[in-house]
Amino acid sequence: MYNIISIVGTSDSGKTTLIEKLVTLLTKKGYKIATIKHDAHSFDIDREGKDSYRHKQAGAKTVIISSSEKIAMISSVSKEPTLEELMLLLPDDIDIIITEGYKRSNKPKIEVFRTSHSRDFLCKDDNTLVAVATDDLNASEIENVNNKFLLDNIEDIAVFIETNFIKKENKDDIILFINGKQIHLNEFVKNTLILTINALVKPLKGASNAKNIWLKIRNK
Amino acid sequence: MYNIISIVGTSDSGKTTLIEKLVTLLTKKGYKIATIKHDAHSFDIDREGKDSYRHKQAGAKTVIISSSEKIAMISSVSKEPTLEELMLLLPDDIDIIITEGYKRSNKPKIEVFRTSHSRDFLCKDDNTLVAVATDDLNASEIENVNNKFLLDNIEDIAVFIETNFIKKENKDDIILFINGKQIHLNEFVKNTLILTINALVKPLKGASNAKNIWLKIRNK
Repeated sequence: MYNIISIVGTSDSGKTTLIEKLVTLLTKKGYKIATIKHDAHSFDIDREGKDSYRHKQAGAKTVIISSSEKIAMISSVSKEPTLEELMLLLPDDIDIIITEGYKRSNKPKIEVFRTSHSRDFLCKDDNTLVAVATDDLNASEIENVNNKFLLDNIEDIAVFIETNFIKKENKDDIILFINGKQIHLNEFVKNTLILTINALVKPLKGASNAKNIWLKIRNK
Repeated sequence: MYNIISIVGTSDSGKTTLIEKLVTLLTKKGYKIATIKHDAHSFDIDREGKDSYRHKQAGAKTVIISSSEKIAMISSVSKEPTLEELMLLLPDDIDIIITEGYKRSNKPKIEVFRTSHSRDFLCKDDNTLVAVATDDLNASEIENVNNKFLLDNIEDIAVFIETNFIKKENKDDIILFINGKQIHLNEFVKNTLILTINALVKPLKGASNAKNIWLKIRNK
């Protein structure tokens, strides 16, 4: 669906700083970035006294604030959402999602591995690891890793992401959720749904050249 | 799609306080509420120094923070989103959306009208007005309004919303967005899409008794 890369590493390895620099550089190159951060704790984001805070405190499950420049949404959940569920919240024009954390997902990962900080190399046996950003290219833990970058070589890490993840050829794709749960689709079912739904909406006014189709049905 | 009621009124008429009390009472009655607030200004919601703030400051168009209790999403937009676009961000189990503001939308409205505060009655000629919450039931401005409640009579206002908006019979419904724009659907097209897509997904594993279907297609 969306292009995605995860930046993983032990706590305080420097994930946020790397993401901050990558977002700055990739945004300068003209790409639209979304970041998704996993927070182990209950975070506070809204400010006491604001109207939205008052709505949430009163018990609202979800609050949205919207203006001509920005929208914000805060929602209570009963369990940790999957990355796919979170992707449904993103605008259609995002070029790549960079996640902080999510080391247990099956998405491609760059591990931040600082030998000066920790000897733990998280993705040792993880076949979704695509590169390591490190302070020591010769560390024995990463001798079998193909793509290694010095942690401050942001330019090359950005080019690596651009070449392998942003500019990769995207296939037609579909995400389907039913009653809030993602439905696994094999290639045959994917293609059937994509072809049929495209054919169904094509005659509608405003539906020519549909790049993104988004629909929600509520059955009685 | 969702049940929705808008609370409108001049600024400082008491909209937020009324919503706060309604959300508290309706949540106690077991309903799941979402609120949507229109903000004329560029609001600050994130806190300086937080990782998500750093991602956004670096230029990310959208940032999401997620935990097992709460998710938050902040996104830059190039124009004011419509209520329909904002509804796509909501969980499926919301019983009613209460909006603060949105007096120009075509959704049903309750106006907060305090004669002690303002003589402006906003919804004079608005046929989407369904009730007034006021400090003076005998004010001449609202003599033709059928449903009038004292502003502090939260119980009766909540019952009015419950009876007329939460418990109303919902029809099957569909929202369709193509390339980020909502597509107008007449009843025939709505029914065709709902029937066909329900039939397409019905045989899939996990798709029996589909109350909510949510899908996103990205064409190459």
